[in-house]
This record gives sequence, structure tokens and C-alpha cells, in this order.
Amino acid sequence: MKLIIDAMSGDNAPEAMVAGCVMAAREFGQEYILVGREEALRPLLAREKADGLPIAIQHADDVIDMHDDPATAVRQKKNASMSVALRLLRDGAGDAMISAGNTGALLSGATLVVKRVKGIRRAALPPMLPCKNGHVLLVDAGANTECTPEYLLQFAYMGSFYMEKVMGVARPRVGLVNNGAEDTKGDPLRKETYQLLRQADEAGRIRFVGNVEGSDVPKGACDVAVTDGFTGNVMLKTVEGVASFLVGEIKTMFLTNARTKLAYLLVKPAMGALKKLLSTSEVGGAPFLGISKPVFKAHGSSDARAIRSAVRQAMNFVQADVVGEIERNIEHMTL
Amino acid sequence: MKLIIDAMSGDNAPEAMVAGCVMAAREFGQEYILVGREEALRPLLAREKADGLPIAIQHADDVIDMHDDPATAVRQKKNASMSVALRLLRDGAGDAMISAGNTGALLSGATLVVKRVKGIRRAALPPMLPCKNGHVLLVDAGANTECTPEYLLQFAYMGSFYMEKVMGVARPRVGLVNNGAEDTKGDPLRKETYQLLRQADEAGRIRFVGNVEGSDVPKGACDVAVTDGFTGNVMLKTVEGVASFLVGEIKTMFLTNARTKLAYLLVKPAMGALKKLLSTSEVGGAPFLGISKPVFKAHGSSDARAIRSAVRQAMNFVQADVVGEIERNIEHMTL
Repeated sequence: MKLIIDAMSGDNAPEAMVAGCVMAAREFGQEYILVGREEALRPLLAREKADGLPIAIQHADDVIDMHDDPATAVRQKKNASMSVALRLLRDGAGDAMISAGNTGALLSGATLVVKRVKGIRRAALPPMLPCKNGHVLLVDAGANTECTPEYLLQFAYMGSFYMEKVMGVARPRVGLVNNGAEDTKGDPLRKETYQLLRQADEAGRIRFVGNVEGSDVPKGACDVAVTDGFTGNVMLKTVEGVASFLVGEIKTMFLTNARTKLAYLLVKPAMGALKKLLSTSEVGGAPFLGISKPVFKAHGSSDARAIRSAVRQAMNFVQADVVGEIERNIEHMTL
Repeated sequence: MKLIIDAMSGDNAPEAMVAGCVMAAREFGQEYILVGREEALRPLLAREKADGLPIAIQHADDVIDMHDDPATAVRQKKNASMSVALRLLRDGAGDAMISAGNTGALLSGATLVVKRVKGIRRAALPPMLPCKNGHVLLVDAGANTECTPEYLLQFAYMGSFYMEKVMGVARPRVGLVNNGAEDTKGDPLRKETYQLLRQADEAGRIRFVGNVEGSDVPKGACDVAVTDGFTGNVMLKTVEGVASFLVGEIKTMFLTNARTKLAYLLVKPAMGALKKLLSTSEVGGAPFLGISKPVFKAHGSSDARAIRSAVRQAMNFVQADVVGEIERNIEHMTL
């Protein structure tokens, strides 16, 4: 397998991208193409003592950053590392592409250059949220602000394939995020989607567990939480905000007095497990579901270890052939 | 002031309603009408030794419960305590009405019997969420699944009046919940609402701080978070779910081993403050904003103390004349 890495992407580029790639090469084998400024990448590879590892450099002059307009960046900056990496993927030079760059630009670029699977209306970026007893895939979480019932049906199928084939969840439970559990709840989008998901469940193609409320998702009521990108973005950010607020309050609690400070020393190791649970770098990133070849988004703040995790996940995504699974089922996913 | 209390409402009715009313009468003075089955209420008042307190009973045979259809309950059960209490309010027998019953039935009933302020398109039920350094009013949080920009403009004004006049926040900061901070973000509803809120800010009528993301709300970025009822419901429930999930994980952390159990004993008093922060019974309830007379919804799970808090809040709501403030500004709130 050959992995194409947008080496100029993310807050810690290019250092973290190169170090993460070297870490992955040592641990997982495989071949790699680092795309970016050769004069910046070459010394970093030397610093990591990467001689003899199967890592090639593909020079690209330009960089897409967070200030570039997502809709037009890849089209306008043809020599940016992201644009070059996407074209390499399209042309078959590698099996998957990984970037920690501008999410919107990557989605637009992947759609423009690599294209969606035929029949898929919108690609989605589904992050994995921590929940009771595991993780839940939130799809969509921001890429598509306005959705139709057909988009949501496709998100449900794609999320279900991902959780089953990549995450190893048998018969993933699909829930529709709604403002109540009863099957009559919601706006027209939810009501129509509910019927489509129920039909897909009755045909034995997905496992639909019905509507889920915002409170049910952190409780682990489903493996795939389906929603439009607007609601999904607000949910995702709310989870982050509440977690950060509560962790802050807990810290304040531990700083109250000498007794609580002593308590902190006693729970410090156990707090580590809690922090790990809330941390995103353990998960690494998320694929764009619906693109015709594997494009993987790592977190912008990824360090080398997170990039290594993203490589591992991208490899699993390729091996599980989620794209092929979507293609083989496309007739059931279109109205 | 005279307060009308739906004594048969809530999970702990009628005991908690009667005990909360007696508590309020002793603490705040004022007059009260308890509406419900006289044969049930009379002995409870005796048990609370309420002789001599200005508490009257208005008999009502029937009860609306959680299984009644919200849209039709008040119309169909004319002798239910909620229906009778709403008619008493409409007819001027009291200054405010408080219920811990079926939220949907109370909203439909208040709209049908008491009516909205002329020009207000939809009434909203805004809960108060805990956030860094205080509380934020989330409006709407579930009453109105589908909204127009005009509804959201009205929610912004009404929420702003409430936070200023009742909660004492000077120049409350109004934020529009959106999937990004930039002013071009969101679906058409958000984009149009953004312009309306900006204009209201430029005219000096509200203080609009722009778009807020889900993560900004728990961080205390605004005093009033404006959104449609679908998104607001998902946000509110997500906050509850994440808080409950994290509190559970923290408990698990403290049960890890003997050291952490000892730590728990040391932080136990400080944990109380954290629990209080997350507790809803300290806040008591929320008014329906936009109804032409004060109708106050207490939590379904309210105990006597929470009912007493709800009475206090309803009194503040009457004294602050939020309804009058809405009426006086209605020309700015309609398109």
C-alpha cells in the first residue's frame, strides 16, 4: 500500500507530518509519498534518520492555509501540497491521501479532483465522539449545512459501513438525531428521513434504532448518529464546549483547598484515563465518506503521534474497502 | 400579587406543589390559589399547618398528564387543573400562573386560552443553562421546531428583556447559534436572522455579539443564545447528556482503587458545589416568553424547594413587567 501525505498541512507542519510519517513507516511498513517543499522536507527526514525507509518526496511549491477560501483554494493554488497530493491520488500514484489542512478546502478539493462515488450526493466528514462504553460516529458534522432526506439516508449507510468494516462493530445501530424519541417527532426533513431509514432497516440493509435525542448520543444509544451538517456541527461543538467547561470546573474544584489538592494527587493517574477519553488524538482523524478514493482528514492540531494514528486509520479504511462497499450498495442508497 | 398554582402538575404532585406554595407564602408573602382536587389539597394544607396563610383552593376535577396530546389537552379536558388555572389567569383572578405539568400542553393551552402578545408569532420556553461565570438563556429550546427569521428576531428581543429585567444582566449579549463564527456562516435562516439582529444592534435596541458556535455557549460567550427549537432542543439535551456522561466517568474514576476512594472523601464537599452548578432545581423553571400574561413552567421533577424557587422567579417576572416591555417594543419586533 502507498500513502500520500500532505506534508505542509496542519498547525505543526511540516515537522509533525514528517515525524508521524516516519513513525508510521517504522511501525506499519508500507510506502509513503510526502508532498511539499523539498527543501523543507529533506532536512526533516534526515533529522528523523529516515534513510532506507520507503518514503519519497514529491515537491510542491505552494501551501493552502486556514485563510484560503475553502471553495476555491484547490482550484486556485494548483501547486499547493494539498492540490498535488489529491491529483496523485486521483491518478493512482497511491492508495490513500492524508491531510491535516483546511477541512473545507480538502472537502471541496477531494470532490473536485478525486470526485464522489457515482450516485453519492454529498461527501461527509464524520468525527468519532466519545460516549458511554465506546465511541459514536456523528455524520454529518459540518460539511453539509443543508440536507435532503436522501443525503441523510446516504450518511446512514456510509456511517454504518464505516463502523462495521473499519471499527469492527457488528450490526452498527443507526440513530436519527431528533427533538424527541417518538416516531412522529421533528421537522419534515426528520420525518421523511425516518421513513427511509425504517424501510432500509426492514429490508435488512441497516439497523435503525429510531430517533435519538441529544442526551441519548453521549449515553451510547447508537453507533452512528445521523444528522444534517448544521445540527451536527452545533452538537459536536457543544460536546467539546461542555467537556471543556466541566474539566475546568473540576480543576477549580481540586484547587479549592489543601484537602482537595491532596485529593488531586491521589486521582492524578485515574484523571489521565479520563483525559484520554476526551482526547481526539487517540482517534486520529476521519475519512471523507462518499469520495471515490480514500481521503483522510487528520486534526489540524495533530502532533506526530496523531499523524501516525491517522495513517493507521487510513490503512484500515483502505483494507476494509469502504469505498467498494458504498459502490456495491449505491442502488439502495439513491431515491 | 396573587399567584395561581396548577397543584396537580409535575412528578411529585400534589405534595410538592402544596409544600412549595406554603414555603413561598411563608417566605415571600403574597396570595395564592391552588388549583386541583379539593379533597386531595385540603389535607395537604393541613399537614403543612398552612392555617392563616393567604392560600385559597380552586377545585378542578381533572388532570392533564404526560400521556395527553399536547396540542389538544387543554381544549379537551376543560376541567383539568391546568385548564382551570389558565382561565383564572386570563380572567384576571391572579397575576401569574405556575405549572410543572406537560410542557407542550401548557404552551398550547397558554397560547389558546391566555393568547400571545399581539404581533408575537410564537411563544418560546427558554431554559437557563449553566456556563462559565454564570448562566445563558437558550431561546428557543424546543417549543418551535420550524422557525422563520422573524421568530428568531423576536426570541432575541424577548430573551434580552428577560435577562436584563429579571436576571439583572446589564446590556445582555445576544449570540446567534451557528455553525461557525464568520458572519457568512449558516443556512438561509441563520443568514437572514444575522442581518436582522445586526440591524437591531445598530439601532441600539439589543446588543448583538454575532454568531456563536456550540462550544462558545458553555464558555459564556453570550447571555442569550438564539436558535430554532429543533437545534435548541438538540443542544439542551446534548449538554444534559454530556454532563451526565462525564459525571458518571468521574464517579468511575473515584472508584478505581483505595487511593481514589480516599480522594473522593477529600473532595466531597467541593463536589457538592459542582453538582449544584449542574442542578436545575436551583434555577426553578422558565417563563413562556411571548404569552400576554405570565405563565411559568417549573421542571416536571420539581420538589417543594424547586417550586418555591419557581414562585420566586415568577414574582420577579411579574415585577419586572417583561410582558409590558414586549408590548411596548412590538413595533421593532415585527417585519
